[in-house]
Amino acid sequence: MENIATKVKITKASSSKLSSVDFSNLTFGKVFTDHMMVCDYKDGSWQTPEIVPYGPLQMYPSAKVFHYGQAVFEGMKAYKDDEDKVWLFRPEQNFERINKSSKRLAIPEFPKGHFFNGLEELLKLDKEWIQKGFGNSMYLRPFVIATEPGVSASTSSEYKFMILCSPAQSYYSGEVRVKVSEDYSRAADGGVGFAKAAGNYGAQFFPTDIANSEGYQQIIWTDANTHEYLEEAGTMNLFFRIGDKLVTAPISDRILDGVTRKSIIDLAKDANIDVEIRRIKVAELIEAANAGELKEIFGSGTATVVTPILGFGYKGEKYELPKIEDSYAKSFKDQLLKIQYNQAEDKFGWRYEVK
Amino acid sequence: MENIATKVKITKASSSKLSSVDFSNLTFGKVFTDHMMVCDYKDGSWQTPEIVPYGPLQMYPSAKVFHYGQAVFEGMKAYKDDEDKVWLFRPEQNFERINKSSKRLAIPEFPKGHFFNGLEELLKLDKEWIQKGFGNSMYLRPFVIATEPGVSASTSSEYKFMILCSPAQSYYSGEVRVKVSEDYSRAADGGVGFAKAAGNYGAQFFPTDIANSEGYQQIIWTDANTHEYLEEAGTMNLFFRIGDKLVTAPISDRILDGVTRKSIIDLAKDANIDVEIRRIKVAELIEAANAGELKEIFGSGTATVVTPILGFGYKGEKYELPKIEDSYAKSFKDQLLKIQYNQAEDKFGWRYEVK
Repeated sequence: MENIATKVKITKASSSKLSSVDFSNLTFGKVFTDHMMVCDYKDGSWQTPEIVPYGPLQMYPSAKVFHYGQAVFEGMKAYKDDEDKVWLFRPEQNFERINKSSKRLAIPEFPKGHFFNGLEELLKLDKEWIQKGFGNSMYLRPFVIATEPGVSASTSSEYKFMILCSPAQSYYSGEVRVKVSEDYSRAADGGVGFAKAAGNYGAQFFPTDIANSEGYQQIIWTDANTHEYLEEAGTMNLFFRIGDKLVTAPISDRILDGVTRKSIIDLAKDANIDVEIRRIKVAELIEAANAGELKEIFGSGTATVVTPILGFGYKGEKYELPKIEDSYAKSFKDQLLKIQYNQAEDKFGWRYEVK
Repeated sequence: MENIATKVKITKASSSKLSSVDFSNLTFGKVFTDHMMVCDYKDGSWQTPEIVPYGPLQMYPSAKVFHYGQAVFEGMKAYKDDEDKVWLFRPEQNFERINKSSKRLAIPEFPKGHFFNGLEELLKLDKEWIQKGFGNSMYLRPFVIATEPGVSASTSSEYKFMILCSPAQSYYSGEVRVKVSEDYSRAADGGVGFAKAAGNYGAQFFPTDIANSEGYQQIIWTDANTHEYLEEAGTMNLFFRIGDKLVTAPISDRILDGVTRKSIIDLAKDANIDVEIRRIKVAELIEAANAGELKEIFGSGTATVVTPILGFGYKGEKYELPKIEDSYAKSFKDQLLKIQYNQAEDKFGWRYEVK
């Protein structure tokens, strides 16, 4: 990464909350570190990034984000190795994607120097919050919100770019079974499904709550037109192992271009696994399941890295996947974690050290 | 409306900003009155509605609304007649719709007594802000936002319901020409298009900015599957007058059930105008335009009541509508305004007095 000179203004917290945190008992995304990064957009440009003590914002209730959902975000993690070095995983991908999301939401793109220098200063300041140990990490949440006060339905002239840091434990995500969506949809062609737009997520809560009540943890979204094709799981991209072949849906304007997804595709190709990036029908999944050919389904995403899916439901039928010895999901997860924690060779150049 | 006893806690502003406002020069949605209504949801129930001085909120940057767009809103107006009486227009429709929107966004429904008593107390307190005179009004913005701090992508356990009041002038919305969308989409089948969900609006800003740069003020959205059928304009429902027949798209899970739209349908039927509520193809519009049969297009919505559309663009072609003497748009607007301002008989029972 080139070093781009951007001044970052730092105001340190007067005391640290670190000693009060029980790191053996963390709820995901609930505890935040001592500092956060804030950068305002006004008068047509992004101002100096600042690092300030974590705390509440003062915002007018007429701020556009509250009314029109003009907001995007990213999810990243920082890892600490055995020598206390701090690493990021492909951060330039998150930087590029937040600007891609911003563009679709009519939010001004954020400068690269602001992003990297702000993020690195923040991590250096709150480094003690990153726990060592395989699986422990610091979840990073860059996001942008429209802050202009005023309820006319048009593009905001003011924004806030922020980064929050939340220590995260290695966690067992529980047994995950998914429901294949038959009625509800996540995204339209020509819509904002490819973006990490805030509204994409809130729109999934109601159908997901229904699926939860039926015993499923997540939803596999299908295309809105026909509900015949498998897309993504809302917080994860999906992989299907049919025989020894790995199939995943192509990215489109409805499907998020996941960083973990593309890394898994690279790892699979590198291992000479046959990867097919193509649309996949629900019917093909069912057929493969019935023929005993469907060996694995797994989700990929920053939070859980790889999530094995034990079964799925479709039109009232429940399908259970076989237990498998030689699991692709487990292998990809191990490989990714070892790269992320500086325990293996980084042949793709994915690691990025925070110095 | 039945009177439902709900206590409203009132904290008055120490002074009024009223004298500092230039009512002859208002920008829509920029000036707010002295007070606002706030009601918190926590521990599983809506608390006592409060009226407090208008001012900034303190919110954690991890509040779910910033990250997942779990937010809905409404648009209403209050009108003052020549005898200083204050009126609302079909407010129960807005009350029912915000709860319909909330349900789809997994937000707990708001109690009717809280809504009406809070709104009426607020209007009584800021009554002086409503200017008399045809076209002047007080724009009301009820909305709900998810306030629970925490960045896990799941339904919030805390919310804020608020009502803001903004004085609005009678305004000439300028010459409006619209672009028929060929690529971008507003909503998917099975999505949240029927709801006044915050994210639906932010997602339209970028395509609308492009249309603006091409000389169009708004976009006519078409269905995401085929882009062949006309839907709505994002902040307006649409009516097409072909010959003397009035055509409007049926509401669906992609199209907002507009209060002004349904009122116009009732007025049209009452005037023995032939109203067809059916899907309408772009091709039919073009054909009617070319045959000289397309006499009017107009949008309906709370902010502008009825907006005549002077022309539209489709696949690079520009179509201008004829000037018309006996305009349906003008007639419906006059009738609605007269009912809203207590200047005409209210045969449908749409007016609601704030006492």
